[in-house]
Amino acid sequence: MALIVQKYGGTSVANPERIRNVARRVARYKAMGHQVVVVVSAMSGETNKLIGLAKELMEEPDPRELDMIVSTGEQVTIGMTALALIDLGIKAKSYTGAQVKILTDGAHTKARILSIDQHNIKTDLDAGYVCVVAGFQGVDANGNITTLGRGGSDTTGVALAAALGADECQIYTDVDGVYTTDPRVVPEARRLKSITFEEMLELASQGSKVLQIRSVEFAGKYKVKLRVLSSFEEDGDGTLITFEESSKENNMEEPIISGIAFNRDEAKVTVLGVPDKPGIAYQILGPVADANIDVDMIIQNVGADGTTDFTFTVHKNELSKTLALLKDKVQGHMAAREIRGDDKIAKVSIVGVGMRSHVGIASKMFRTLAEEGINIQMISTSEIKIAVVIDEKYLELAVRVLHKAFELEDAQTD
Amino acid sequence: MALIVQKYGGTSVANPERIRNVARRVARYKAMGHQVVVVVSAMSGETNKLIGLAKELMEEPDPRELDMIVSTGEQVTIGMTALALIDLGIKAKSYTGAQVKILTDGAHTKARILSIDQHNIKTDLDAGYVCVVAGFQGVDANGNITTLGRGGSDTTGVALAAALGADECQIYTDVDGVYTTDPRVVPEARRLKSITFEEMLELASQGSKVLQIRSVEFAGKYKVKLRVLSSFEEDGDGTLITFEESSKENNMEEPIISGIAFNRDEAKVTVLGVPDKPGIAYQILGPVADANIDVDMIIQNVGADGTTDFTFTVHKNELSKTLALLKDKVQGHMAAREIRGDDKIAKVSIVGVGMRSHVGIASKMFRTLAEEGINIQMISTSEIKIAVVIDEKYLELAVRVLHKAFELEDAQTD
Repeated sequence: MALIVQKYGGTSVANPERIRNVARRVARYKAMGHQVVVVVSAMSGETNKLIGLAKELMEEPDPRELDMIVSTGEQVTIGMTALALIDLGIKAKSYTGAQVKILTDGAHTKARILSIDQHNIKTDLDAGYVCVVAGFQGVDANGNITTLGRGGSDTTGVALAAALGADECQIYTDVDGVYTTDPRVVPEARRLKSITFEEMLELASQGSKVLQIRSVEFAGKYKVKLRVLSSFEEDGDGTLITFEESSKENNMEEPIISGIAFNRDEAKVTVLGVPDKPGIAYQILGPVADANIDVDMIIQNVGADGTTDFTFTVHKNELSKTLALLKDKVQGHMAAREIRGDDKIAKVSIVGVGMRSHVGIASKMFRTLAEEGINIQMISTSEIKIAVVIDEKYLELAVRVLHKAFELEDAQTD
Repeated sequence: MALIVQKYGGTSVANPERIRNVARRVARYKAMGHQVVVVVSAMSGETNKLIGLAKELMEEPDPRELDMIVSTGEQVTIGMTALALIDLGIKAKSYTGAQVKILTDGAHTKARILSIDQHNIKTDLDAGYVCVVAGFQGVDANGNITTLGRGGSDTTGVALAAALGADECQIYTDVDGVYTTDPRVVPEARRLKSITFEEMLELASQGSKVLQIRSVEFAGKYKVKLRVLSSFEEDGDGTLITFEESSKENNMEEPIISGIAFNRDEAKVTVLGVPDKPGIAYQILGPVADANIDVDMIIQNVGADGTTDFTFTVHKNELSKTLALLKDKVQGHMAAREIRGDDKIAKVSIVGVGMRSHVGIASKMFRTLAEEGINIQMISTSEIKIAVVIDEKYLELAVRVLHKAFELEDAQTD
């Protein structure tokens, strides 16, 4: 008997018939003698519908009230999933984040989990119940309902698996695993049978959209065995996320590049002509961080005239807020010449373990893009990825030519 | 400065524009220096939509899970109402039933309020907030979300007014007060400027649908000053529900009959041919009460052959459950000949203080119906009402002829 946490995303619970399918799958695991905790998202489309309602009343909705409204999406799904299970003759009980209780900080719309009380769930599991838990939500120390931000249901699943000491956390989605890149852009993309935690982290953070980055971080921190599976296939092993550095580097046959990730959700902010002296980065990014705006890439170039240009990327949704903030709090204070925003950008990354030791990778990437006339606006590198920012309109082209250049369609993905 | 509880029903918050209107009205009361607690229902149509979703998964949904799903309707509205207020520059905060906390028993889908914790609300009111509370819902001692049953938002409003010692509880609805009968059936129906608590109780319980009966009971018990108003009119005093026996009986000019109520929501259950001995009523109604099914009219006639027929009415939605229960637990045990159900009935009542002392009222009612060829199936009387059950198809006709016979269109309603 194992304890398994299964997380189902919005498309897997998009309507009553799909919820019934989820219940049948849970029933099969239950019949094998396993204890099952199910984490569900809102039915696909619901969260956007609820945000739309809120925005009809207030252009930038008060975050506490937005969470109050948006959290109902998952609350409906947990009730429906429990009903589908009960209808199959399985004991089931639904839980909101507050009922579990999943304690978070008070950062509405992007709260972080502080702790999970496992008492209620454990008691019910031991009494033979399937516990159906609302993803994406929690409660702060004052009893206010919070949400974890978009994609937070994955985080709920992994965090619950960690808190309960689950044997495996299965993330069911509308794809059957992690691919070398998005198959909608490159039809030749191949499924990876396994991928290291670090590679997955890069692929997820770069926008592969299979798993939310925070859930992968959580899984790594607590060594949760994580598997990505399709909720639309009866069988299939999906992609296992491993925590070994893998044997890839010791095997010349193995490809160095695991995949190509991309992201259209970021916007570029440039602060031009700031005096080149210590403390610039902090003075610019401090107010941004205080406003709880996440920053991804950060680049600073030293200029020739004693001034420098500072560029970073934020989520497109936060571009106007960021620009307003910088103009208000930073520009005058720092005597910056100009502040520019650009949301017509995209980020493309190649990801793979051991990339650093292969200097040819970067130059191959840059040459491939140059041959197609694609200009590179920013570059950022890490141990296992090279990311570039390009004009948004070249995104699909860039992904396709890079996928081909690194021969990912022929890769020994298993 | 007064403390006012305002309750808005589903049609008053049916869409963002109407919610904005609610916020503007609240703002006016706030500007007068009052403290305001707002109780809202789900947007009209939402509760039925949610019940429909639940029924797609389970024909008779598990009550705990149904409450989990249905309670989201009000949760969305409180968030939206708070946003509309904040957008007007008014400090506002929404509360679910659990957050207040409104403690109920564990009878899911028809829970009763046990107590209301006023601490959070009082603290926020004193800090200048408008508190927006979800109607219709509470939480049981184990933290499960409960609902009070249909129309329960009125009860939430009155119960909150009682707990907070509010100066007035205003119930906003889509009509501008209590009428002599439903104006959709009788266009000549007139608004009553005031009505006694007891009359209102009968009018509400007989299905006038302006106020839910439990809320009126609550108001009477705690002497809450209750006023019914239209949310679609800027001005208007609505109808005040008074707790005096009123001066009506001392004034020959006053009409005896206040109004005519009717109800299409009940079904008739008859247990035929049960032995005529003590304990019958308990043996039949005991299991019904245990199953938490509300019974309205109860009639027992002594028969000639040592057996008797026992008839009562339940909500139409519970007819099949009641029949199954009686066949299972009562019929064999009591040796009853037959159990019959009929949901094609309607109830019509005439309501008025001092009716008992005017013997001519009942005969006038029966004669009026007889003249139209309407057969009376059941009769039930109280101090202030006479109710009859008739064939559903004659309902509108019966209400119209009774309204005319008792000259309600000409009544001195003020």
